Amino acid sequence: MFVVMRTGATEAEVIGVKALILDEGLTPFENVGVDRTLIAVVGEIGKRREPLKARLEGMSGVASVALISKPYKLVSREFHPEDTVIRVLDAVVGDGSLSVMAGPCSIETREQLLETADFVAAHGATILRGGAFKPRTSPYSFQGLGVEGLRYLAEARERTGMPVITEVMEPSQVDIVAEYSDILQIGTRNMQNFSLLLACGRSSRPVMLKRGFGATIEEWLMAAEYIASAGNSQIIMCERGIRTFETTTRNTLDLTAVPLMHHLTHLPVVVDPSHATGKRWLVKPLAIGGVAVGADGIMVEVHPNPDEALSDAEQQLDFAQFETLMGALRAVHEHVRDLHGDLMHSEGVAAAPVASVNGAA
Amino acid sequence: MFVVMRTGATEAEVIGVKALILDEGLTPFENVGVDRTLIAVVGEIGKRREPLKARLEGMSGVASVALISKPYKLVSREFHPEDTVIRVLDAVVGDGSLSVMAGPCSIETREQLLETADFVAAHGATILRGGAFKPRTSPYSFQGLGVEGLRYLAEARERTGMPVITEVMEPSQVDIVAEYSDILQIGTRNMQNFSLLLACGRSSRPVMLKRGFGATIEEWLMAAEYIASAGNSQIIMCERGIRTFETTTRNTLDLTAVPLMHHLTHLPVVVDPSHATGKRWLVKPLAIGGVAVGADGIMVEVHPNPDEALSDAEQQLDFAQFETLMGALRAVHEHVRDLHGDLMHSEGVAAAPVASVNGAA
Amino acid sequence: MFVVMRTGATEAEVIGVKALILDEGLTPFENVGVDRTLIAVVGEIGKRREPLKARLEGMSGVASVALISKPYKLVSREFHPEDTVIRVLDAVVGDGSLSVMAGPCSIETREQLLETADFVAAHGATILRGGAFKPRTSPYSFQGLGVEGLRYLAEARERTGMPVITEVMEPSQVDIVAEYSDILQIGTRNMQNFSLLLACGRSSRPVMLKRGFGATIEEWLMAAEYIASAGNSQIIMCERGIRTFETTTRNTLDLTAVPLMHHLTHLPVVVDPSHATGKRWLVKPLAIGGVAVGADGIMVEVHPNPDEALSDAEQQLDFAQFETLMGALRAVHEHVRDLHGDLMHSEGVAAAPVASVNGAA
Amino acid sequence: MFVVMRTGATEAEVIGVKALILDEGLTPFENVGVDRTLIAVVGEIGKRREPLKARLEGMSGVASVALISKPYKLVSREFHPEDTVIRVLDAVVGDGSLSVMAGPCSIETREQLLETADFVAAHGATILRGGAFKPRTSPYSFQGLGVEGLRYLAEARERTGMPVITEVMEPSQVDIVAEYSDILQIGTRNMQNFSLLLACGRSSRPVMLKRGFGATIEEWLMAAEYIASAGNSQIIMCERGIRTFETTTRNTLDLTAVPLMHHLTHLPVVVDPSHATGKRWLVKPLAIGGVAVGADGIMVEVHPNPDEALSDAEQQLDFAQFETLMGALRAVHEHVRDLHGDLMHSEGVAAAPVASVNGAA
Repeated sequence: MFVVMRTGATEAEVIGVKALILDEGLTPFENVGVDRTLIAVVGEIGKRREPLKARLEGMSGVASVALISKPYKLVSREFHPEDTVIRVLDAVVGDGSLSVMAGPCSIETREQLLETADFVAAHGATILRGGAFKPRTSPYSFQGLGVEGLRYLAEARERTGMPVITEVMEPSQVDIVAEYSDILQIGTRNMQNFSLLLACGRSSRPVMLKRGFGATIEEWLMAAEYIASAGNSQIIMCERGIRTFETTTRNTLDLTAVPLMHHLTHLPVVVDPSHATGKRWLVKPLAIGGVAVGADGIMVEVHPNPDEALSDAEQQLDFAQFETLMGALRAVHEHVRDLHGDLMHSEGVAAAPVASVNGAA
Repeated sequence: MFVVMRTGATEAEVIGVKALILDEGLTPFENVGVDRTLIAVVGEIGKRREPLKARLEGMSGVASVALISKPYKLVSREFHPEDTVIRVLDAVVGDGSLSVMAGPCSIETREQLLETADFVAAHGATILRGGAFKPRTSPYSFQGLGVEGLRYLAEARERTGMPVITEVMEPSQVDIVAEYSDILQIGTRNMQNFSLLLACGRSSRPVMLKRGFGATIEEWLMAAEYIASAGNSQIIMCERGIRTFETTTRNTLDLTAVPLMHHLTHLPVVVDPSHATGKRWLVKPLAIGGVAVGADGIMVEVHPNPDEALSDAEQQLDFAQFETLMGALRAVHEHVRDLHGDLMHSEGVAAAPVASVNGAA
Repeated sequence: MFVVMRTGATEAEVIGVKALILDEGLTPFENVGVDRTLIAVVGEIGKRREPLKARLEGMSGVASVALISKPYKLVSREFHPEDTVIRVLDAVVGDGSLSVMAGPCSIETREQLLETADFVAAHGATILRGGAFKPRTSPYSFQGLGVEGLRYLAEARERTGMPVITEVMEPSQVDIVAEYSDILQIGTRNMQNFSLLLACGRSSRPVMLKRGFGATIEEWLMAAEYIASAGNSQIIMCERGIRTFETTTRNTLDLTAVPLMHHLTHLPVVVDPSHATGKRWLVKPLAIGGVAVGADGIMVEVHPNPDEALSDAEQQLDFAQFETLMGALRAVHEHVRDLHGDLMHSEGVAAAPVASVNGAA
Repeated sequence: MFVVMRTGATEAEVIGVKALILDEGLTPFENVGVDRTLIAVVGEIGKRREPLKARLEGMSGVASVALISKPYKLVSREFHPEDTVIRVLDAVVGDGSLSVMAGPCSIETREQLLETADFVAAHGATILRGGAFKPRTSPYSFQGLGVEGLRYLAEARERTGMPVITEVMEPSQVDIVAEYSDILQIGTRNMQNFSLLLACGRSSRPVMLKRGFGATIEEWLMAAEYIASAGNSQIIMCERGIRTFETTTRNTLDLTAVPLMHHLTHLPVVVDPSHATGKRWLVKPLAIGGVAVGADGIMVEVHPNPDEALSDAEQQLDFAQFETLMGALRAVHEHVRDLHGDLMHSEGVAAAPVASVNGAA
């Protein structure tokens, strides 16, 4: 359920609506739009729906009360029709520009990270990636440099001015990672680690949420809803491939997820072709494909010497390949950026927030 | 196994090699390249491999004898490094231009087909599609107009000059369909209907082979090998989505298949976003994505009045949507056409045919 | 839609109802139950549903007219609450006994087939299997002995008294296969080869329909409906594994399909653990599992010398393994046969044919 | 790599071997078998393999040094040929008896839990299950009673004598859950929550590890290896269904996983048919199937009044259904328990630990 305030509603009226919601033991979330404010009501409403709706409709400053038809509320376009734009240092994700998150799979040494950071910064990357805590299928594989890696990331940020992103693997790591990193990354295996989602939701850092390789579109949105419900709606969605019967590539990159996400949610979407394909020579065509279907950015692994990498050696680009990739992405991005605007207003998505009611709350 | 003839080998030398192969109860397939001829040896070679190789190497005009590492031979890039280009009337598939196969899912009436044909021809389609024999999940659904539909197709070709493509569902239909249609289409459910593959392989018409929604890349190539082994290597591969756990869309379009196919085979690849997504508003972004990853063409369903279509109503474009789509595709195609040339010569694919030997034959 | 005749309705009344249905351009299918007759009405009913229902209800001998809620009609339990029992020579499938279809993957020689037939007959098999026309992923693999293989099958039947089953791959083969074989088998790759389904539906032989490895439960039932709609409702459903992301086994045997099928359809269900797992040592535990979940039979591949088999060498049992398997299956079957009776009458399945109406026809 | 000590090797000799391993910065894990002791060497051995092997072979008390061919070491049958048997209070898992873990999906009230505990205890359950911390797809669904629920569990144990099992969702919860619960459960969504695996690995409580619904057999074993590598090898594997394209049931129960696991690992395996199918009436046939393929136990959800349950209402059994189920399981278990003994010693599994070397360590 969400309350549409009248254009020009006063702050006192907004506060009045929120107070009523809190009184009911529910939580109000405010979306201040260009010309009017929306207030989502989340929590277990159950049988109170009709009387609560009536009471809210009767309040001063309220234009209407609408239902949200999807199980996710705060991250839905119905509640928040405008695109969410995320700003970190000088980087902007979701404003129509092309974000490029580049860097090594794992941070291996100070030199490896700084050399890579300098190169990708000079060739158009906007955000530096690098793994400090690494989720590995085997307990005997390289697990990352940990806090030492975080320090190198911070140093690379100082040098290049680029914000940095790195993965956080458990709730108790959120504080230390947030101390060094500008964006928190939640990995594919933790997409439904609900404790971690909530912990990141309580952080003030933007969060990038990778799609679980076994997760549906709806589950992915529900995972984002966990983060948002804890107070943090600075979320970037990252498609990185799903698991199918096909074995030629590691996973199957689901590029359909990009326009679907733009249709269903206001959050920006980036594509990671490195992990999806697991093959270096497929990174460029699929990164181009990701940009072409409208992704807000690309995450790509770059290493000074991929063949000696301690993890994911087969999928990391070398410097020359990254440079070629950037040229291609720029060529494509420029020509597709205006082609997908109708997605946010296509069938089934109300341009203005209007009730659609199946199973709505 | 394939024989590389010397540059300038005489016709007599080529005939000599082929005769030896035939004597062994095997079949020779000739690929006349720009500066030299290759002859593939197919059939059950088994333990004869080494002695046969030695005998062939000793023949006049033979430069070398190489093995093919893949289970598919005739359709592999190893045997046939040059792109296959297919020409039908004025349409060309696989030469770097963008083929657009457009038309209704099912042919419903003469007027519906002709009206659609006129429109798509005027707006850039290069090939007319339309179903006359329809494979339907239910025996009680509309099964197509049959031969009557084929006649309308032929009439549309006369009017517009566009070649036509339509599905053939069983071996005994191949002759009649080939009489009216310029290209034979094999549907996703028949990708491993081996009798049909062989029957189409004996036809002189080009064949478009849709990927089975449950088929791996390798099985799809083996299905093409069936067609080629029967003598017809004019084959267009069509990616149309695979079946995954995701339920938001009908299938998951596997755009990775496009660069993979260009890497593994010399055959052209087109993408069908209509059937993969099952949703009209996703056709445009995914058609753009298909072109961007390097597809040689797009197949798309267009209907004068999609909401009244007798099949697949939800995924067919109306005329205005098709026109918008064509504008977008042209904008993208122009800027990506030169970006993917390295795929055919990337890691693991020999530019020149050289032996790589795992399980080779 | 189906018509429930009154207990004791006369033949003339039944004929009257069928005549009315035929007059409407629809097809009547009769199910003569223990105490009353049901007549299904299939075809495109569309908007005639209500008036037709009213007219039928008014006819002499008619007790009621009910709708079928599923897209499949003739094969649904709603139309046909009693189990279908199939009798071929002395073998019975679907009566609570355990059918065992055993024999080599491919018929390779007369001796190989007869030796296997003798052995499996002596150890409890009830039906002899053997491939004469083989669907192979590669055009260069052994394709079967063809008609010569069919003759050996017929000879084995003469010797052992067991009925035989073999695969038919295209409509034009149905007659010749039906001449030699007691049961026609449709393979997993042909489950949606609609021309073949219809051709088998016009045969008087029972048909065993393997589930497509990429097919849902509902598509499988719709494929059976094709056969039934052409007049043949002697159909055995065979679960043989579906394609998933798991790669340790060839496919994932879906044993849940057995109770689901017993719930949704009156047709008998057998399980093929050989093709699903692709590993000999998994055949016994999964055959036991299949019997335990209530399968009407097991199909298993047996070869005098599996390691030298021309196809599927890794999954065929040798004679000693088959004997062990039979002992285990008998032990289990005896104790589970009465445990699953409630499935046919569980939630959502009407014991007596009553209307349930979503999308019914 | 693992060291096979001589029969009768002294404790001093064992200590000597372990000391050498520790000196190398690696970790020794001891498996005291019936007549001899094995010591696994885990950690990054890399290029030291050959010299280390030679040094170990030269030590006093060492019979031989063998390699483990699988990426998982401690949980493999190669290292530990004997079945692991887990004893908790009076319950035993893995000794050939049938474990039945029964109880409500979520603990809702003290009365609900105690009533259920009394009933299932009286009808043959051996372990009480009940969720206190619930992983829910939506942040707005009932999240469990938390510590209050744990207290009710402990009270139920006092009353019935049954050990209890409940889920732990994050590393910081392990201590509190271990205080109240006899077995720690790791849920399907956390199967690759590596921090949680390690935290449970440091606990002295047995751990039940559910298979991720998107996880392969090998990944599942690697997750168990994480727990074992942290010192805890009291692990129960629980198959609960994987995600496939089939939509009739919630997931596809992979019963093949049971014999596969018994082949590959020494850990006990139980089957959860409630979550896999999501349908109450499928629980009984699939629980029977699970027992029949050789599972060491069944986990099943039971509720006094399923239709009013706060979670998973559709799949919980009522008391009468549980009683019927127990009767069926006992009937089947008795007759299959001796049928699967050959799995542990079948092809590819050495009865005695012998080197098999692909990628071994």
